[in-house]
Amino acid sequence: MLRLSTFPIQTLKSRPNVSDNESTGILLQWWYIRQEMAGVYNFLPMGLRVLRNIENIVRAEMDNAGYHETLMAVISGKESWDKTGRWDMDVMFHVPAHGNKEYSINPTNEETVVPMMKEFLQSYKNYPTCVYHIQKKFRNEKRAKSGLLRGREFLMKDAYSFHIDESEFSEFYENAKVVYKRIFERLGVGADTYETVADGGDFTDKYSHEFQTVLPIGEDEIYICKWCQLGHNKEIVEGDFVCTSCWSLEYDLKQASEVGNIFPLETKFSKAFELEYLDGENKKIDKVLMGCYGIGISRLMGVIAEYSITDKGIAWPESIAPATHYIIVIGEDNLDIATKLAEELESQWKTVVLDDRMGRKFGFGQKAGDCELWGIPNRIVFSPKTLEQGGYELLERGEKSSIVKL
Amino acid sequence: MLRLSTFPIQTLKSRPNVSDNESTGILLQWWYIRQEMAGVYNFLPMGLRVLRNIENIVRAEMDNAGYHETLMAVISGKESWDKTGRWDMDVMFHVPAHGNKEYSINPTNEETVVPMMKEFLQSYKNYPTCVYHIQKKFRNEKRAKSGLLRGREFLMKDAYSFHIDESEFSEFYENAKVVYKRIFERLGVGADTYETVADGGDFTDKYSHEFQTVLPIGEDEIYICKWCQLGHNKEIVEGDFVCTSCWSLEYDLKQASEVGNIFPLETKFSKAFELEYLDGENKKIDKVLMGCYGIGISRLMGVIAEYSITDKGIAWPESIAPATHYIIVIGEDNLDIATKLAEELESQWKTVVLDDRMGRKFGFGQKAGDCELWGIPNRIVFSPKTLEQGGYELLERGEKSSIVKL
Repeated sequence: MLRLSTFPIQTLKSRPNVSDNESTGILLQWWYIRQEMAGVYNFLPMGLRVLRNIENIVRAEMDNAGYHETLMAVISGKESWDKTGRWDMDVMFHVPAHGNKEYSINPTNEETVVPMMKEFLQSYKNYPTCVYHIQKKFRNEKRAKSGLLRGREFLMKDAYSFHIDESEFSEFYENAKVVYKRIFERLGVGADTYETVADGGDFTDKYSHEFQTVLPIGEDEIYICKWCQLGHNKEIVEGDFVCTSCWSLEYDLKQASEVGNIFPLETKFSKAFELEYLDGENKKIDKVLMGCYGIGISRLMGVIAEYSITDKGIAWPESIAPATHYIIVIGEDNLDIATKLAEELESQWKTVVLDDRMGRKFGFGQKAGDCELWGIPNRIVFSPKTLEQGGYELLERGEKSSIVKL
Repeated sequence: MLRLSTFPIQTLKSRPNVSDNESTGILLQWWYIRQEMAGVYNFLPMGLRVLRNIENIVRAEMDNAGYHETLMAVISGKESWDKTGRWDMDVMFHVPAHGNKEYSINPTNEETVVPMMKEFLQSYKNYPTCVYHIQKKFRNEKRAKSGLLRGREFLMKDAYSFHIDESEFSEFYENAKVVYKRIFERLGVGADTYETVADGGDFTDKYSHEFQTVLPIGEDEIYICKWCQLGHNKEIVEGDFVCTSCWSLEYDLKQASEVGNIFPLETKFSKAFELEYLDGENKKIDKVLMGCYGIGISRLMGVIAEYSITDKGIAWPESIAPATHYIIVIGEDNLDIATKLAEELESQWKTVVLDDRMGRKFGFGQKAGDCELWGIPNRIVFSPKTLEQGGYELLERGEKSSIVKL
């Protein structure tokens, strides 16, 4: 449990100004995060808890869907990037090293995953397979902005799949959408997050797919089909809107923020690294299809914060709140009984912030305010008054408070 | 559960040669890890499981002891390093960035943690406190060697504590040793890991303390007092050995590998960043004592691998083995019943590798060998023969096998 007396998270008196979104200011003011430099943040205990909750939901759903977790390197040699011609990407950090070497700090991981998986994918029997990792990534951005939404250092889940059959790939790719929808549901943004058709970029003639959460500060504009709810990034809509799925002409046009994307990579990277396999007749085949599937974990934290702003703070979805329970203790005498309940709750897999700060500055009003600021869904109060009534006060989000007898 | 049919971890026919230790060759041959470049490794599913198990034990014990988890940045600006004069450290990677900037890829985190914590430590009431994080670190090593033991990229737990009272600091520092001992116990190396007095380095006139695991390949020599078991790094023993604790003259001299260290930092970093607080009389005091407490998580994986080598593979301690159970399935028909048991075990917080690979190559011998290779402590076999006997065969490490009826 987090005992606030041992980590005195104070809040800043004034809110740092972040031009293009409101939530970053709140995250900074309440010490979820602290700016190390523009686009780079340290996560303090309350912020790290939110980040890890998001990460763990993503991980659980990837595992459930049969993706294998790995952990790929952050720095790499130049050789792999030379094979794909991406060494000189503008966002790549190039790091001089002893021995006249130069390394990359990886902004993405195709150049790592393909050589790595090539070791295992030499027979048709080894397909299909898919791996992922959750790792920090780095981009040499000219201007970092938008807090967690576009950083120089950020936490990301990347998944990659490998296939030798077109229709099997299509089926896998469609299932990835289902997995992503479940993730966004569990993260509490499902109702406003749309599968969105987008440009395929450099690697495919087909479309790619984004998941876009409707938000006024969103950097994208999407057409949402009124009939089938499929989103379309404005970049692919030429002239009048026609839904690519149900051919309806009716739409809503909304601002939205990208929270995930999936791409067919075709054979772009498998060819670059000469990934080949032996088929059933021992013939060498050089056509391995790949897909890639990204979710920006720290970016998502920023999006969900923005999505969950109330006039009192950030009302985090219960699945990712920094804790499930916030226990306010009024009076030293009541600390033992409150600690006991906290331990009991944690043994039931709940997470507890114990507001055991004492002294004149920390009255009920201050503590209740902090609980609301931090958006913790269940508030418990131990005070002389509640104990007189035989127990503690429980206030669940959206409910009326009640006394729970001990 | 890890289904081997979907992630075909093959083993290399020959063992890569690593000059100064045996375990790295094994870790590479059996695809726990794959070298990205010298000193930089990718973790494949079996290796990542071991790494995470170590990480989670360290995290649980730090949390128990009241350290607050944070996540600090990997890259930083030059300004903080200029304040401590460490920008030009030989192991520091310097990264040119847009806008004529230069960043560090952090080899250590004092320069991050002090400015961060300074925000919260302005009153005497805010002391003592302690934080930690588990993060990748980077060193520009001239020559990377020894596999996971000394890398250019590695995972580390760093903790830092802040104090305003000498004797309170001493008590905290002594307790850190107790926490470390418990961690090494749980990791299965407690019996051969010694608290070891070492040189204080640049920051203190006092000693620092290492935890050293006795290993023939160890890069350090330690004198272990025969009476009180306290280790002494050879670097501090001048002339004849005298135990610094019980004054005994008797010792064993052994090779050992460092698995953790704790340092008094005195006021070196708090002064550099002008960390000051107001005392009870509102007077500004500029003397904040710090301690730092490190454990190299990925290095530990290398040390424990080396420590656990048998003639058949690596017999991982049960607490960190890639799985608790390895289920061998012989015959497609038995897959359903084996999967059901695997699910049941995972619902009881066990972790399962399901060897569901079929085909002539994957007979019982191959699968049983792989189980032993990977050092998984409990082996279960479902085969026509065991089912004839009414169930499955269970073989626990060090025990005789028996049939468990279904």
